[in-house]
Order: sequence, then structure tokens, then C-alpha cells
Amino acid sequence: MSKTTLNKISEILGISKSTASKALNNYADVSPKTKAMVLNLAKELDYTPNSFAQNLRSQESKIIGLIVPEIVHYFFSNIILGVINAASKCGYAVVVVQSNDDYEYEVKQLDALLQKNVDGVLLSFADNTNNFKHVKSLLSNNVPLVLYDKISKLIDCNKVVIDDIKAAQMATQHLIDIGCKKIAIVRNKLKSQTTIDRYKGYKKALLLNDIEYDKLLDIETEDVSLESGKKAALTIFENHKEVDAVFAVTDLLAIGVLETFKENNVQVPEQISIIGFSNWLLTQITTPHLSTIDQPGQQMGKVAFDLLYSEIINNKNNVKEPYKTVVIDTKVISRESTK
Amino acid sequence: MSKTTLNKISEILGISKSTASKALNNYADVSPKTKAMVLNLAKELDYTPNSFAQNLRSQESKIIGLIVPEIVHYFFSNIILGVINAASKCGYAVVVVQSNDDYEYEVKQLDALLQKNVDGVLLSFADNTNNFKHVKSLLSNNVPLVLYDKISKLIDCNKVVIDDIKAAQMATQHLIDIGCKKIAIVRNKLKSQTTIDRYKGYKKALLLNDIEYDKLLDIETEDVSLESGKKAALTIFENHKEVDAVFAVTDLLAIGVLETFKENNVQVPEQISIIGFSNWLLTQITTPHLSTIDQPGQQMGKVAFDLLYSEIINNKNNVKEPYKTVVIDTKVISRESTK
Repeated sequence: MSKTTLNKISEILGISKSTASKALNNYADVSPKTKAMVLNLAKELDYTPNSFAQNLRSQESKIIGLIVPEIVHYFFSNIILGVINAASKCGYAVVVVQSNDDYEYEVKQLDALLQKNVDGVLLSFADNTNNFKHVKSLLSNNVPLVLYDKISKLIDCNKVVIDDIKAAQMATQHLIDIGCKKIAIVRNKLKSQTTIDRYKGYKKALLLNDIEYDKLLDIETEDVSLESGKKAALTIFENHKEVDAVFAVTDLLAIGVLETFKENNVQVPEQISIIGFSNWLLTQITTPHLSTIDQPGQQMGKVAFDLLYSEIINNKNNVKEPYKTVVIDTKVISRESTK
Repeated sequence: MSKTTLNKISEILGISKSTASKALNNYADVSPKTKAMVLNLAKELDYTPNSFAQNLRSQESKIIGLIVPEIVHYFFSNIILGVINAASKCGYAVVVVQSNDDYEYEVKQLDALLQKNVDGVLLSFADNTNNFKHVKSLLSNNVPLVLYDKISKLIDCNKVVIDDIKAAQMATQHLIDIGCKKIAIVRNKLKSQTTIDRYKGYKKALLLNDIEYDKLLDIETEDVSLESGKKAALTIFENHKEVDAVFAVTDLLAIGVLETFKENNVQVPEQISIIGFSNWLLTQITTPHLSTIDQPGQQMGKVAFDLLYSEIINNKNNVKEPYKTVVIDTKVISRESTK
């Protein structure tokens, strides 16, 4: 047995396939009686229209591709949700792929998406992506692209980001406002634009408050994992007793720092305040609850899709609009780890 | 400008479109010289084969649909990852949709997937799904379906689950083994098969250890949220000082219970032991770290895709195999909240 096809409907009713198709698509040159007959039978047979033929005619799949660095990740889960909710409202489905935060795999996954003829792509770069041939090839083929979160300023396309410099500056300023003076930063290597910008924001806040940047309090980690946070905290605990606050560039790093301080009986926030970045659900579970920067993933996902959709529609109508970069607002979430 | 098409390649090289297509698909009746010429030009022009025409010929999209109740959810994120990694290896893309854990929306999303002509569907039911007309219609149209995690025994298809009865029994037995005698269960309403089975497992462990089931220690909650866990803990704290252990049917419930006990100076595990269910990342962050049942999402996602893929291949070859239910192993993860 096979799926119900247009063939079957036309056969049963003794009409041509094209009449059956026209009836289903509500064409004016088919009689209301025939239309009703076809629609009733289609319903009875659970007929699903063959989108392959429709796609071939329209050269549209009504499917978009979404590349995320990591799927098991609170922020990116929120991105996915924001994208699919917005896409669903416009009749688009979303193919989700993961780059494993790796350039080579990102290229491969983008290629796989294009082979499915997606109508557009949403992409957040892997940390080690610094060659952009793959996205330039996409753009030269006129496939709409929106970069979100981890972007590159070298690519000319629509983008949606938060202002990482401003957000990190706000986080550091929050620590200064509550009286902290020796503020360490825990960060991964200065490769991705987000880390670079958060680092800049930290230094900017120090500068504006006449606090000297201290290279020794600038702790570089391998990555942004819990384990790396723990190692960084150990360095601070063993060598820098003067530190009274830590700004960690991700929540996982911050939680690692917190765990290690607790293990070593360092009181948070009495001795050291800690602030993270992203507002993962995890931050509401730690003891004490973690202060952080809210990074609204669902909203970012929605805006990313909306930008892509506009471009798809514009392309259909041969309209060309200048590319935009939408900046999503963030705020400090002050909880128990900073007092 | 439009995407590079087969037309353009054939035009530039002065060969027929069908020859160009055959060259790209490595047909034997095209000379090696022509093949090389076509492939080089295709590469130069960043040509992506038109999958619409391919799909129409094969009546395959090489896309499958994955319905999850909730996307921002550690376990389901792992499911998604397991599915897309397995699918990618077989050349399949995965459209991800969310049912919002709601029957009506689940029906709508399944319909949206079918309109994209997916080759098969992976589905975990919403908590309030107890009408199965939508999946029966799917099956009668011969669209391969695999149910995972939240399944129904009433549907005849491939399934992948954990043995929730056994897992809950193991969790309760763990509490008994460490000396607990007054063991409360915190659970949502007995609607989904998973909750029903975890409830059965709890009662089975009590029975096997000659501990009487106490209706008063059976705390029913609105849902499986953190807040519901907190409310349940308050009921236990205020009315049942004799309780020495809690089995919560999800990690979020367990964490809510833990938070409220801590706020009320109940020592965990000294006064009350707590065990959750699922092994979310969160459970490694709480103080004390939470004991739980490991529920391997990635493995479940992989097995679900593999079952679907087998069925797709079998259908192509007109092979019919009996449906299987694969049971994934679970284990108790003993941490600081049970001693």
C-alpha cells in the first residue's frame, strides 16, 4: 500500500488528474459540485497534498535551516524555540543542525542544509570559525542568511545580537556599585566576537571607574565549561586572596567558580561576589542563587526568523533592502551571589 | 540573480540538460571528459543540485519530523541531539517541532510536518493526549512512525522507552537500602504512561519490602515544575514530620523539594533523603548534589531514529517486519542527597 495520491482520487472519481488537482487548489474553472466531491474523497482518504510537485513548481521548500553550536545548551534551546514558534506562524518548518562548535563540521552541516534546498539559513558561528568562504558562497548564491549571537562583522548580511560590550560593562559596573574593587574576570580565549566584546566591556567599566586593569586578575580558561570555572577559581583562591569579585563570561564558568569557592569555605557573597552571563535556569538553582546577565534567547530566535522571512519575501518581489543588525536589550539580574 | 541551475550549466557548456544531469549523477553513458567538465563548472559556480526535482522523482524528502513536548528541557535536548546525529549519518535532515505538551497543538504540528512530506515521524506524546486519531491516520497512510519516551500501548508501531516501573522501583529501593522507612512520593496526576509507571514502581518497591503504602505520603502536584515541588515539600514539612525520604518523579520536582527543605532548615540527607528522576545537568549543581535516575536521552534519540530508518528502508523494499519496543537501560546515580 502507498500513500493516497492524486492519481487514486482521479481514478475513483473518473476525472482527470489535473481537474482533481484544480479542485483541491480551489481553481475557478472547476464546478462547485466537482470540488465538493474531490474534497470529500480527499478527506475520507486522509489525502496529503504532494508537496514535492508544489515545491518543484514554486522552487520553494518552505523549510529553513538553523545551525546552532550546541543543542544541549539552555540558551540555544531558547533560540530554537523562538525560531520554530515564529517560523510555524508563517508556515515554515525548521531543520535544526548542530555544528559541535567546530568550523569543519559547520561547513559540512551547512552543505547538508543546502542539499535539502532550504529557503534560508540562520547561523551562529562555531568558536573556531575564522574562515568565511562557506557563508560567502551561500550569499553569492542568493540564499538568505541571518547571523545570530556569534556573528562576524566581516559578513554583509542581516544580524541579531546582544550588545556584549555593554552587557559585560553593566555586569562589572554592578560589582563596582556594590563596593567591589579587586574584580577578576574569568574568560575563555579571545577568539569569538562574544568573548572579545565581554572582555572589552569588563575593561571599559574598570576604566570608567578609575580602577586599574590588573593582568594577574585576568584568568584565561581552556573553554567555558564547569571544570574550567573550577580551575580558574582555584587559581584565584590560591594566589589572589585580595580578589573581592569575579565576573565570569558564561554562567557555567561562574557556577564552577562558585562550587570551588564553596568547597574551600570562601563565603559568597560575603567574601567574594560572583556574576555570570546568560541567565541559564541553572543560576536559579545554585546556593546562593547566581547574579547574571539576562540574554533573551527566545526573543533573539524570533527576531532572527523575522529578518530571514522579510528577506525571503523581498527576494520574491525583487525588492532589495539594506541589511540590518538588530541589537536585543539585556539587563543585570541581581541575585544572592552579589551583595 | 538566481541560484545556479542545471540550465545554466548546460547553456554554458553547450550540452543538453539531461547530459549535464547525468554527468553530475555519475551515469555510465556520459564520457569521463564531459563529466569532468560539468563537475568543474558546477564547483566553480557553487552549484547545489535541485533537490525538488530529485524529491519529485523519488517521492522522498530525506527529511524526518521530530515532535518533542518541550524544547527547553534537558532530557528532550538530548533526544534532539541523539536523533540529528544519527539522522545526519544517513543523509537525513530533521525538522523539529514542539507540541507544548498539548494535544491540540500536537495534532496541528503533526499536520504541519506531513505537509512538508516528511519521510517519517518521531513522536513523544503530550501529557494530555488520550485520543490517537491523528497517529492512526498517519499509520493508515503508511507514514513510518516511532514513538519514544511518552508512548501509548494502544498504538501498534515501533517504540523506544525506558522501563519506568523498574527505574522507579530501583530509585525507591535505593532509599530503602540506605535505611529509609517513611518514603513519600511527589508526582503529577496519573495521566501519562511515564507517571503511571513511576508510581507503580514506587508501590512495587514498598510492597516487596513489606512497607505499607500510605495514601497521606502520596503527594499529587499540578505539574512537574520547580514550583510544584516546593509546594509538595511544604505539605510534607508541615504535616508529615515522620517522612525520612522523598522520591520525586522528575528532577525539577526533586529540586523544588530540596530548595524548600533547605529554606526550612531541614537537613538533606541527614533528616530526609531525596532522589529525583532523569539526571538533568541541574542535579550536579544543587547543594547537596541530587541523586537521580539516569535517563539516557541521546541514546534513546539514536535508537528512535535507527528504528525509523529501518522501517523506511523496509518499506522501499516491500519488506514487512514485526514492530519492536526497545527498552533502554537506566541506573541509579547515587549522590549527596541520599546517604
